[in-house]
Amino acid sequence: MQQPKILKSGFLPEETRKKLHTVIYEADTRAGKLFDIILLCVILLSIVAVMLESVASIKIVYGRQLAWIEWIITVLFTLEYIGRVIAVREPLKYVFSFYGFVDLLATIPKYVGLLFPGTGFLIAVRAVRLLRVFRILKLTHFVGAGNQLINALRKSQVKIAVFLFSVLVLCIIMGTLMYMIEGPESGFTSIPISIYWTIVTLTTVGFGDITPITPLGQLVSVIIMIMGYGIIAVPTGLVTAQFMNDEKPHLNTQACPNCGANQHRDDAKFCYNCGASLSK
Amino acid sequence: MQQPKILKSGFLPEETRKKLHTVIYEADTRAGKLFDIILLCVILLSIVAVMLESVASIKIVYGRQLAWIEWIITVLFTLEYIGRVIAVREPLKYVFSFYGFVDLLATIPKYVGLLFPGTGFLIAVRAVRLLRVFRILKLTHFVGAGNQLINALRKSQVKIAVFLFSVLVLCIIMGTLMYMIEGPESGFTSIPISIYWTIVTLTTVGFGDITPITPLGQLVSVIIMIMGYGIIAVPTGLVTAQFMNDEKPHLNTQACPNCGANQHRDDAKFCYNCGASLSK
Amino acid sequence: MQQPKILKSGFLPEETRKKLHTVIYEADTRAGKLFDIILLCVILLSIVAVMLESVASIKIVYGRQLAWIEWIITVLFTLEYIGRVIAVREPLKYVFSFYGFVDLLATIPKYVGLLFPGTGFLIAVRAVRLLRVFRILKLTHFVGAGNQLINALRKSQVKIAVFLFSVLVLCIIMGTLMYMIEGPESGFTSIPISIYWTIVTLTTVGFGDITPITPLGQLVSVIIMIMGYGIIAVPTGLVTAQFMNDEKPHLNTQACPNCGANQHRDDAKFCYNCGASLSK
Amino acid sequence: MQQPKILKSGFLPEETRKKLHTVIYEADTRAGKLFDIILLCVILLSIVAVMLESVASIKIVYGRQLAWIEWIITVLFTLEYIGRVIAVREPLKYVFSFYGFVDLLATIPKYVGLLFPGTGFLIAVRAVRLLRVFRILKLTHFVGAGNQLINALRKSQVKIAVFLFSVLVLCIIMGTLMYMIEGPESGFTSIPISIYWTIVTLTTVGFGDITPITPLGQLVSVIIMIMGYGIIAVPTGLVTAQFMNDEKPHLNTQACPNCGANQHRDDAKFCYNCGASLSK
Repeated sequence: MQQPKILKSGFLPEETRKKLHTVIYEADTRAGKLFDIILLCVILLSIVAVMLESVASIKIVYGRQLAWIEWIITVLFTLEYIGRVIAVREPLKYVFSFYGFVDLLATIPKYVGLLFPGTGFLIAVRAVRLLRVFRILKLTHFVGAGNQLINALRKSQVKIAVFLFSVLVLCIIMGTLMYMIEGPESGFTSIPISIYWTIVTLTTVGFGDITPITPLGQLVSVIIMIMGYGIIAVPTGLVTAQFMNDEKPHLNTQACPNCGANQHRDDAKFCYNCGASLSK
Repeated sequence: MQQPKILKSGFLPEETRKKLHTVIYEADTRAGKLFDIILLCVILLSIVAVMLESVASIKIVYGRQLAWIEWIITVLFTLEYIGRVIAVREPLKYVFSFYGFVDLLATIPKYVGLLFPGTGFLIAVRAVRLLRVFRILKLTHFVGAGNQLINALRKSQVKIAVFLFSVLVLCIIMGTLMYMIEGPESGFTSIPISIYWTIVTLTTVGFGDITPITPLGQLVSVIIMIMGYGIIAVPTGLVTAQFMNDEKPHLNTQACPNCGANQHRDDAKFCYNCGASLSK
Repeated sequence: MQQPKILKSGFLPEETRKKLHTVIYEADTRAGKLFDIILLCVILLSIVAVMLESVASIKIVYGRQLAWIEWIITVLFTLEYIGRVIAVREPLKYVFSFYGFVDLLATIPKYVGLLFPGTGFLIAVRAVRLLRVFRILKLTHFVGAGNQLINALRKSQVKIAVFLFSVLVLCIIMGTLMYMIEGPESGFTSIPISIYWTIVTLTTVGFGDITPITPLGQLVSVIIMIMGYGIIAVPTGLVTAQFMNDEKPHLNTQACPNCGANQHRDDAKFCYNCGASLSK
Repeated sequence: MQQPKILKSGFLPEETRKKLHTVIYEADTRAGKLFDIILLCVILLSIVAVMLESVASIKIVYGRQLAWIEWIITVLFTLEYIGRVIAVREPLKYVFSFYGFVDLLATIPKYVGLLFPGTGFLIAVRAVRLLRVFRILKLTHFVGAGNQLINALRKSQVKIAVFLFSVLVLCIIMGTLMYMIEGPESGFTSIPISIYWTIVTLTTVGFGDITPITPLGQLVSVIIMIMGYGIIAVPTGLVTAQFMNDEKPHLNTQACPNCGANQHRDDAKFCYNCGASLSK
């Protein structure tokens, strides 16, 4: 609709740009699929490289190879970033989008490392590359199933929020109680630590780094555990009920204009009660 | 209906009292919403202050600031308490209600601390403020979802009670067994401790502060774990079935006056069995 | 039907025996209820006494009082046992029934202790008293709910057995694998211990007394954990599906004699498909 | 259909081969059942022997007896293997089938041990015998229930895969975050170890070998735990919904040839929407 200016219409002739766009952003052609698979491999390689570099014994032995791999990945990501910028009609929109930032951050750590050597926080920036795996999801046939899962969760969203809020209040109350009962001698050194311990216990994780020693503390622990064991039924029940409802034809709450009956199938044309036409 | 006496009609002229009541007790007007949000912040601040004061390192450095915050909260809660008392028509009824007590207890710790300095149990009283967060729930649109959750739990109440009782008996029997098998050398120093350990294991928390050492003890542990892993299905199944039933058209237990058949839809007009009209 | 002999007709005149039977074995009369409640209290007291005696510090201080309580309980249980024997028409049948043995074992520890002082295994016999709590269940209105739970579990019995068997085979295979990977240095001293650890991990208990150290062992652990996290869905799904089916009007598999359609309601009189009468 | 050659028609006359086949491969005759039960016992014995031999204290005392049992098992498995080979019409097909390999591997460890004494990896080969228990499953009436379980899991396969992939990405991100927060001092020595810890925590296993120490790390842990506690609802919900759907009359996706409406009952004869006949 708007008159295209230079930074809005891209750097390439329309024909070339379209072809590049098909390869980089779409996955329907052969070249597009190939590009996506190669990108996926490079992203996974970059993630594995970040992981391995964090293992001290590996870094000592293979440090040089990892540095080389880092350089290769940086070059590939740079080329891909330039490609993405010139392949869209409005580069600025891409650059300032979420994935635009992620792609940029995935590219720059090595360059920044050249300018300011020894900046340790770069590992954090490199970890941003992990977010790029979500690009992969786009190309899979998993999207349908993934959307179904997300929809089911979204529909029970409010109930899950209420549930989590109640659990949190419960944990704060129980944590304070445990702090007053056990005290610092047993490792319950402060109320925040006690609440941390309560959540560890309620979710049935149970690290065992802090454990109650007094009989009363153990009694309260037992109550927390049984509550945690029981109330896990609530999110499970919510999500299960949601999944089930998603699979049966949905009954809506629209009322029949003639007799007022509701709970019709979404695709019903006539009222099941009086046979009047439903003016949808 | 009753003739209002002085302590029953409140301290303020009816007009002023009604306005104050709208602000303090209701959340439909702008002023009412603002009051609720400010109260919510003060309550959360008071909770955070209690938590932070329990952390030794923070108390040493910021003790003075925390004392100041405590005084400010006390003053605000005092004003609010007075407001609540004079804003209702029957102050005594409020004062002796559950929330009346909670509000009072949330207000007094600092005053009591002035009279009897060094009473350590005041932290327990201040923790009562946590209960005030339930006032917050009132103002949210979460109430509907919350009620649904509570209803589903209430309907499976008896079954959950039977389940918990059975689990408790099971834990007592298994705990005694483990005490006899393992004995004090492995940390199973008494039957209550053994039962505590059994509940820790059955609920899949598994602290690891006490663990079986003898082969027989480990075998029994394995049985306890698998039972715990399996019977979590029972509360989950109960609550899920309840959630599902809440969402489908309810079949009621009303009997047909003609043929006595029941399990009709709530909106049925004719018996599904004999066609007689159901006089609802 | 049979000619009653002395040990089959009981020790009391029929009238007295019947009255005693009503009090001891039934819970419909006032006296029967009172008897059951007193018995419940004595059983709970006996269980608490066994528990407390196992706590070393309590036994030292209150050892005498506990011995007294033990004598009182023994006398009461003896009287009750005699009452039960003479209140039934066929005493031998009661004596050799399951509860007959339990009641006898609950009575004798103190007498045996007099004959053979210092027999430590008597604590095991006294723990048998725990089984007596199941007598309590009889008198509660929980029986209905309890039966529903047990029925739901019984109906999915075969599937649960298959599930448990598969889990067991899985644990044996994974345990052997972990033994070969980790070896005795990490605490995986033998295959049985490895299988114990695998079950601890799969059921998400996670004591932490034994943990994998090698990277490969940690990788396999992670697979075991995710499997354990995922397959808990199976018993849960089975039991939930069972609960749901129990609550909706059952659709049977009877086929219509006219058109062969099945899945009729159990109380259907006419085929839903062709309207032919169902000759049930 | 093919002209049988020597290695394809087997080593025995057709009559004898068929009889042997009935005994070894089928479980409908008395002899077949007996063979299966004896085989089951020998397999279980061989598994127990492998387990016991791994326990150092048992191997020292009963090493000779275990060696004898191993020889007996080897001979029995050898005879069975020969039997299986000559009882099928196409021996090569059996030999190169999955179970053919498993049966062979279960037989040879002792022979290999004679040729190359002291090869420790033979324990791994002997553990292969565990896979033979799956042969047992064939003969039980559990097959039906087992198939139902597997079918329900298979149908939610794609959704479960999407779920597991999302959990894995989540664990990688959270693990990297924990590594950056906690660092090597708290035991989070590398990103792979951090991811291992995140999975241990998210699945609510919670070994406690590594625990967060910094307040921020404990906060992130708490988020991981609550996520793990909540998202277990997803596989549970999926599998439960699947079990339920298996039991209710299936709505198919066939479209009405007249109006295009779908979601008909499998046994529907007329379209619920327009009344046109469905030509199934």
